[in-house]
Amino acid sequence: MAFLGAAYHSEPAMSPQKVALVVGASRGLGLEFVSQLLSRPGCRVVAACRNPTNATQLQQLRSQHPDKLSVVMLDSTNEESIQAAAVEVSRQHQHLDLLLNVAGVLHIPDVMSPETALARVTAENLMRVFQTNAFGPILVSKAFTPLLVKAAEANAATSERPAVIANLSARVGSIGDNRLGGWYSYRASKTALNQLTKTMSLEFARRKQPVSCILLHPGTCDTGLSAPFQKNVQPAKLFTRERAVQQLLQIIDRTTCKENGKFFAWDGQEVPW
Amino acid sequence: MAFLGAAYHSEPAMSPQKVALVVGASRGLGLEFVSQLLSRPGCRVVAACRNPTNATQLQQLRSQHPDKLSVVMLDSTNEESIQAAAVEVSRQHQHLDLLLNVAGVLHIPDVMSPETALARVTAENLMRVFQTNAFGPILVSKAFTPLLVKAAEANAATSERPAVIANLSARVGSIGDNRLGGWYSYRASKTALNQLTKTMSLEFARRKQPVSCILLHPGTCDTGLSAPFQKNVQPAKLFTRERAVQQLLQIIDRTTCKENGKFFAWDGQEVPW
Repeated sequence: MAFLGAAYHSEPAMSPQKVALVVGASRGLGLEFVSQLLSRPGCRVVAACRNPTNATQLQQLRSQHPDKLSVVMLDSTNEESIQAAAVEVSRQHQHLDLLLNVAGVLHIPDVMSPETALARVTAENLMRVFQTNAFGPILVSKAFTPLLVKAAEANAATSERPAVIANLSARVGSIGDNRLGGWYSYRASKTALNQLTKTMSLEFARRKQPVSCILLHPGTCDTGLSAPFQKNVQPAKLFTRERAVQQLLQIIDRTTCKENGKFFAWDGQEVPW
Repeated sequence: MAFLGAAYHSEPAMSPQKVALVVGASRGLGLEFVSQLLSRPGCRVVAACRNPTNATQLQQLRSQHPDKLSVVMLDSTNEESIQAAAVEVSRQHQHLDLLLNVAGVLHIPDVMSPETALARVTAENLMRVFQTNAFGPILVSKAFTPLLVKAAEANAATSERPAVIANLSARVGSIGDNRLGGWYSYRASKTALNQLTKTMSLEFARRKQPVSCILLHPGTCDTGLSAPFQKNVQPAKLFTRERAVQQLLQIIDRTTCKENGKFFAWDGQEVPW
């Protein structure tokens, strides 16, 4: 059953608004998720990023959709910032139907590159990459659990739709699929995110709370994250942001409690751990 | 072919000394590894721990085996400390045949317990647990790679024995095998260690350096780490330290380059990722 998708058109008029939160919304896939979700009737979007003032494109969307989009400050490497954002969102909305954790780091110009060799692995980069890619999404999920559970329980009364936590992972986080090596911090941070998300999925299932936690591999997309690493990617395998987000939203739309704890690639195939 | 095992008795007299480094050697399985390795003829052991002065049992072993055992200070959460230890060990030894990363944290009395629920996950504990369980072993492996490669290349000339990096993981780090949930930080830190070790194994293979990297699940052992969590463990499944270490050394003794990048339980069975 569709979650926020086309089927939403046929919802009863009294159905409550659907609310989606996108973390890491200032650019790349996060910004595109905000844009595509805004085009869906009846969908309210909260866009979270570290520095809303500088998020020019997000502010443009905000001025185009003042009733549907709000922007909040959220630094997922800082628990106080996450908690403050949760308080702010809970003032705006009674429930949260979709949490999309998109914020991620692979390289920072002049500061950090993915490690091509063990000799380049440092404690500082491990820490930085894990904070953003693995710890952030789990701490955000923790802070927004009360709002997600409210949506889940409201939905459970009228439909089979769970609330959804969709965490952006990556195929390079798969251990079983690791044949090339390299990119130590990025790979292992996504692997840790996979385990943290799986663990969280089991907790929601055990509590019989219909919150479905899924992991998504978007493929290689034409964003700033992958920009320096696209030269060996076949053109047909380099997705535009629009296409990548369409594909991922299709998976999210199909998500029921059966998908809880699973890891899907852009084409809907499960990725091995 | 045995690595440091019984077969070592039959090595030619001129064969160089075998050197093993145990990180996290002051107690529990680390201390037991030191003790059992010391009983092997021709094996030199370097025992590394955060606070050698307070490591009473290690100092007792040191006084019993002054020619075979040295103790070095190494805090695996501190890169400078790791580097200083590597310099010290390279003054004592020309090569390193076995690196055993045993240091690990699950709980700290009055400070930290494994999380029974998402609501108990904190940035501070994630950081602390990942630093010790995931980042430490990789940063130690990085610092000791030159000594391991020297052993590997010397061995390659006379036998098929690789140098071995054995990282203590845990079955709860398996994502595929995760059915209970809970223990967020500990689980995911071991999952990250698995991916980091797998990535490292691919690098040694690509460089054609015969250093074999393996991951070990010791089972539940009667140590301080598991002490608060033993009540639901069947007595036959709670191993003494002696038995656990004997079992793991059997696996290490059998390790060739074919085992590089694999994750073994105490009984030699591979653990799914």
